[in-house]
Amino acid sequence: MPDRVLRAMTRPVIDHRGPEFAEMTLSLFDELRWVFGDPAHVFVFPSSASGCWEAALTNTLSPGDRVLAYDNGFFAARWATIATRMGLETEILAGDWRRPADPAAIEARLAEDRAHAIRAVLVVHNETSTGVTSDIPAIRAALDRAEHPALLMVDAVSSLGATALDHADWGIDVTVSGSQKGLMLPPGLGFCAASEKALAAAETATSRRAYWDWEETRRSNERGFFPYTPATSLLYGLAEALRMLREEGLEVAFARHARLAEATRRAVEGWGLENYCADPAAYSSSGTTISVPEGVDADALRAEILERYDMSLGTGLGPLEGDVFRIGHLGDFNELMLMGTLAGVAMGLRSAGVPHEPGGVQAALTFLAER
Amino acid sequence: MPDRVLRAMTRPVIDHRGPEFAEMTLSLFDELRWVFGDPAHVFVFPSSASGCWEAALTNTLSPGDRVLAYDNGFFAARWATIATRMGLETEILAGDWRRPADPAAIEARLAEDRAHAIRAVLVVHNETSTGVTSDIPAIRAALDRAEHPALLMVDAVSSLGATALDHADWGIDVTVSGSQKGLMLPPGLGFCAASEKALAAAETATSRRAYWDWEETRRSNERGFFPYTPATSLLYGLAEALRMLREEGLEVAFARHARLAEATRRAVEGWGLENYCADPAAYSSSGTTISVPEGVDADALRAEILERYDMSLGTGLGPLEGDVFRIGHLGDFNELMLMGTLAGVAMGLRSAGVPHEPGGVQAALTFLAER
Amino acid sequence: MPDRVLRAMTRPVIDHRGPEFAEMTLSLFDELRWVFGDPAHVFVFPSSASGCWEAALTNTLSPGDRVLAYDNGFFAARWATIATRMGLETEILAGDWRRPADPAAIEARLAEDRAHAIRAVLVVHNETSTGVTSDIPAIRAALDRAEHPALLMVDAVSSLGATALDHADWGIDVTVSGSQKGLMLPPGLGFCAASEKALAAAETATSRRAYWDWEETRRSNERGFFPYTPATSLLYGLAEALRMLREEGLEVAFARHARLAEATRRAVEGWGLENYCADPAAYSSSGTTISVPEGVDADALRAEILERYDMSLGTGLGPLEGDVFRIGHLGDFNELMLMGTLAGVAMGLRSAGVPHEPGGVQAALTFLAER
Amino acid sequence: MPDRVLRAMTRPVIDHRGPEFAEMTLSLFDELRWVFGDPAHVFVFPSSASGCWEAALTNTLSPGDRVLAYDNGFFAARWATIATRMGLETEILAGDWRRPADPAAIEARLAEDRAHAIRAVLVVHNETSTGVTSDIPAIRAALDRAEHPALLMVDAVSSLGATALDHADWGIDVTVSGSQKGLMLPPGLGFCAASEKALAAAETATSRRAYWDWEETRRSNERGFFPYTPATSLLYGLAEALRMLREEGLEVAFARHARLAEATRRAVEGWGLENYCADPAAYSSSGTTISVPEGVDADALRAEILERYDMSLGTGLGPLEGDVFRIGHLGDFNELMLMGTLAGVAMGLRSAGVPHEPGGVQAALTFLAER
Repeated sequence: MPDRVLRAMTRPVIDHRGPEFAEMTLSLFDELRWVFGDPAHVFVFPSSASGCWEAALTNTLSPGDRVLAYDNGFFAARWATIATRMGLETEILAGDWRRPADPAAIEARLAEDRAHAIRAVLVVHNETSTGVTSDIPAIRAALDRAEHPALLMVDAVSSLGATALDHADWGIDVTVSGSQKGLMLPPGLGFCAASEKALAAAETATSRRAYWDWEETRRSNERGFFPYTPATSLLYGLAEALRMLREEGLEVAFARHARLAEATRRAVEGWGLENYCADPAAYSSSGTTISVPEGVDADALRAEILERYDMSLGTGLGPLEGDVFRIGHLGDFNELMLMGTLAGVAMGLRSAGVPHEPGGVQAALTFLAER
Repeated sequence: MPDRVLRAMTRPVIDHRGPEFAEMTLSLFDELRWVFGDPAHVFVFPSSASGCWEAALTNTLSPGDRVLAYDNGFFAARWATIATRMGLETEILAGDWRRPADPAAIEARLAEDRAHAIRAVLVVHNETSTGVTSDIPAIRAALDRAEHPALLMVDAVSSLGATALDHADWGIDVTVSGSQKGLMLPPGLGFCAASEKALAAAETATSRRAYWDWEETRRSNERGFFPYTPATSLLYGLAEALRMLREEGLEVAFARHARLAEATRRAVEGWGLENYCADPAAYSSSGTTISVPEGVDADALRAEILERYDMSLGTGLGPLEGDVFRIGHLGDFNELMLMGTLAGVAMGLRSAGVPHEPGGVQAALTFLAER
Repeated sequence: MPDRVLRAMTRPVIDHRGPEFAEMTLSLFDELRWVFGDPAHVFVFPSSASGCWEAALTNTLSPGDRVLAYDNGFFAARWATIATRMGLETEILAGDWRRPADPAAIEARLAEDRAHAIRAVLVVHNETSTGVTSDIPAIRAALDRAEHPALLMVDAVSSLGATALDHADWGIDVTVSGSQKGLMLPPGLGFCAASEKALAAAETATSRRAYWDWEETRRSNERGFFPYTPATSLLYGLAEALRMLREEGLEVAFARHARLAEATRRAVEGWGLENYCADPAAYSSSGTTISVPEGVDADALRAEILERYDMSLGTGLGPLEGDVFRIGHLGDFNELMLMGTLAGVAMGLRSAGVPHEPGGVQAALTFLAER
Repeated sequence: MPDRVLRAMTRPVIDHRGPEFAEMTLSLFDELRWVFGDPAHVFVFPSSASGCWEAALTNTLSPGDRVLAYDNGFFAARWATIATRMGLETEILAGDWRRPADPAAIEARLAEDRAHAIRAVLVVHNETSTGVTSDIPAIRAALDRAEHPALLMVDAVSSLGATALDHADWGIDVTVSGSQKGLMLPPGLGFCAASEKALAAAETATSRRAYWDWEETRRSNERGFFPYTPATSLLYGLAEALRMLREEGLEVAFARHARLAEATRRAVEGWGLENYCADPAAYSSSGTTISVPEGVDADALRAEILERYDMSLGTGLGPLEGDVFRIGHLGDFNELMLMGTLAGVAMGLRSAGVPHEPGGVQAALTFLAER
């Protein structure tokens, strides 16, 4: 977390029903619309991002509605589970976890759905578990080609602020995200960016909702307030984080993430290890998932690195447990921090006895130095 | 917010899937059970307290279940609204907002309900809007006398840490609370303390739930984890706040709150103003709601005090708007801070031209000095 | 200490030999000249204010030089002691500790000094120990009337930022101050504001000096640097504190201090206690020293108030030990904090059994409310 | 700076004349004696370390006393200058800046001094400017062999906490240090650790002193206080920093520094650059000074690295300006941070067009991984 954000979070909590608070949040909403790419509204909940998956579904859909959930990763699968729990008819379109969501498969399924029973398509933009980024504009095009009116809902938890994302231009209806990744905050805030079409759907959707209800929230938000006590400290931090992104420029931040991601891949290649993502066009700018060789326990490697170098790498989630580890390279991160991280991985590979080539760190360095 | 809590919140965020995190949260759960009074489990959500109202209802009840919601204040009424939204048959037992929940009325209604259609009774322990504290053991006794199996659900948002509360001893089934009142944290965490009976109800309750689902949460909690990204910074602050309460002692903290509340009432009396709470046995230790004289706009008074003395008093909520203002005296608060607060009110009354007697501050001082 | 200053102090320490640092300090020097009232230069030392007494003397005087030190308080006396230690011929002009420095006495002594043996006159602007403020322009006028070329050196440790002070207009040669009073910082920085005349004196003064040497410091300062490692965190805090004073306005800040001081005196009078300062024209805006009745131990009273109300009052310094206590009312302080403070004193007077009248707090409140 | 230290520094400032403060400082003095290696007393000044050079000299010596100052670096030379300014007869023993202080040369000079005119020998333990560490026990032995009673004064500004140092065992009389290096604090505190012999010398030394005077300070310190307002926030940070060193263990910390220093040297060697220190036995654990090839401007390289990678390297001090740059590796520093640092240097060397071999980072990594 950047110092600036941390310091902003320690400002004294002010009256969340007073004029100073309203002024702060109104300008915050402007900045949120900017970072998401001009949605009709961005809802901010005191919650984890997963709460906003639920919010996206219950505000726009009614019990028994059919949703098409593309499953190509741990978080994609969890979203589908939540849809089921909330009483929706959840149809899973099983994809290859090592590849991005397949627009052709989505188009084919939607084309079949002449009756337009499918009311929403759920896709994860960047799968944190696999390091695979899906092509959202291509999926939008698939819906358009199928002339299908389903809402397009996108999980952008680990892409927002790290990779290009344009809610309005890309024709997304609900973009879900959270505070703790590209926005460089502690966890505790969830976001739902909504299109006019999604807001209209909320007027007729009958799924039960109270905490997550958009309508009451929006009425409060319009005057700069929230229908219940907001997490003020996190909102202070959010305002500061958005200021930092403004100062850096979104395009510059995206290029920085892309460069660090490429350097990471050079290291992986240099070590002779395998990038779990099998499609180079879908390599993630936010994080890289790395397969360990047959017979190696990825979690033992992670424990070794944590113990020796006080560095915490991401674990393999769900079925990937023990088979992969994950290097995050998003948020407040630069070349030097990445090189420290890669050095830690290199030393851990060696001390844990994982078979690998020695050239990873040098390969990353060479790439970064050449730019 | 106390400095200690603030400093604790700025500790670096650690891996919420790692062993250090698990150790911290397991001891945190012990302390939470202590502060609530030995419930079977305390659920911690990244949410406002109102989210936990929803959690209490959806985890233990099924659509169409009848609940009896005692309405004697703004927050009591909101809880009833949430019950309705979540598909419950909500029966409102309308009480006098200036008085505590009436055990006799609850007993009478439950006695009528021979079929035990009522599955839960909802009561607010301390109504923040009115400064009225209800007698939860008396309500428990009412259920017992009526031999009624309904779950007893209590909103302790503004009583926890300020007034005696004993989940197990008092036979409560779900106690709902939040981080930002007696626990001296910023807003952002909600709590559901649950009895074994409530946990058992959760096994059969069919209300839809995902984010708020107790079962998955509990399984994670048992090993020190959460099913989704927790608000780590707030958990750090929570651990520190509970440490402070341990050091002071709960009984000592309750006595401190009671003393500050009595001093506030002496001031109100000294000013010749009216305590909104009409029942001395129900005076709140957490906050005092004060009626302004006929013809005075309480919000104009509040604005004057904010402008001149940079002090934010509570506004009149719902139907009380403009007719009352609220003085909070809970959390990290002492005699000197209270005297500063009361002086600010006194000066504001004068500069805003509100008719009053001059003796309020002196009366509070005399009371505090005499102890 | 204000939150804003505290947060500023936690910014990461930057290279004190780099361009970003230079830019910050150059603008800091501008602001320091503003707050002191346009001296030729303000020296900033990592030191307590007392170090700057030494710096003022050794940079402008030579061993054996005669200085006239007006003694009307604990800090005035300490400054004289330091002058003696540094090898100066220190002549003490003994004043009444309950009264300000007497311009007539200074004029008389200087008029006698036909040979101009006296090279500097040392006066304390606001004596923290006694709550007595001396009239510096009147002392300047005394020097002028005596047509005496002695340097005028003023200790403004507890007046800077609280009371009008104008280095250039008032014809001061060296103004000494520190970070921890009106500038609202933690202790750790000392200041010497110097006139051109003082800087010229430094060119010939032969007192030994290294750490405190102005010449080397000034050459570094001109480019935004320091000749040795500066206390960067405190400089960050200083920049923020000066920003706060700019925002409030110096005149507004002075009026605030004057009002709080008057309210304090009303309380003292209301309690029937005696203000140690015997000259109403010299009452201090920064702090009030209060005599306790015969037979009362002021330190026992202070201990009682610290124990019961966690409030630390100033002790009687030097010969005043046990006979007085001090209420500070400077820096980041407002009406409500003062009223809390006075309430704490009132309760302490009562619980410690100090004979007093009950009307003090009410008298202060009435004064503040009437403005 | 470690988070823990930063958080400690934000604790509210308490009364520096009260019992809580005294308790804190008494235990702090115990810990300071531990970290310095059991001197009779450690003086703590609100100052930079250079102020403590002055304190060491003026407390133990009289004007005209002869001191022998070994000059093998920028800071050694500055100390000699300060001695001259303070009126001491300063004899400079000119050494090779690329090598440690030469015990034989010191012994020879002292042996000549039959009359024992030399009252003190000044040596820098670790020269920050050159990355050269002198062998203090060997110098002590030189004094002993010459049977010379001069005081041995050691500058340990950049060695304390990073390299073995044992005031009592090594027979040092005054060890001077500061807060901002191995103690991981912001700048603002200076230290003088004194032997009984040094304290005895202070009883007769006639150099003028006030701020730096040991005698008054020591009397205050004995009861847990200071003769003037201490820099409380930095003392809080100091207590926390010493706690961290206790937890890690001094020996472990020294080994960590040695390992990081060796890795740095491997990188320098790998790049084909020259370590400014010409004596492998004197390589510094705290920092490495690196000569740039003929024709390269070291400051242009530093500017490039600051601009591109936001990393600030040390500049060449005094005559070394432009010819060297310095890598610090002391304090709160670990393998990963070092590797990030070295990667930044490697990229900077390349982008600034400095001729070098590519293998530096890999060499450091190999060394660290092998341990």
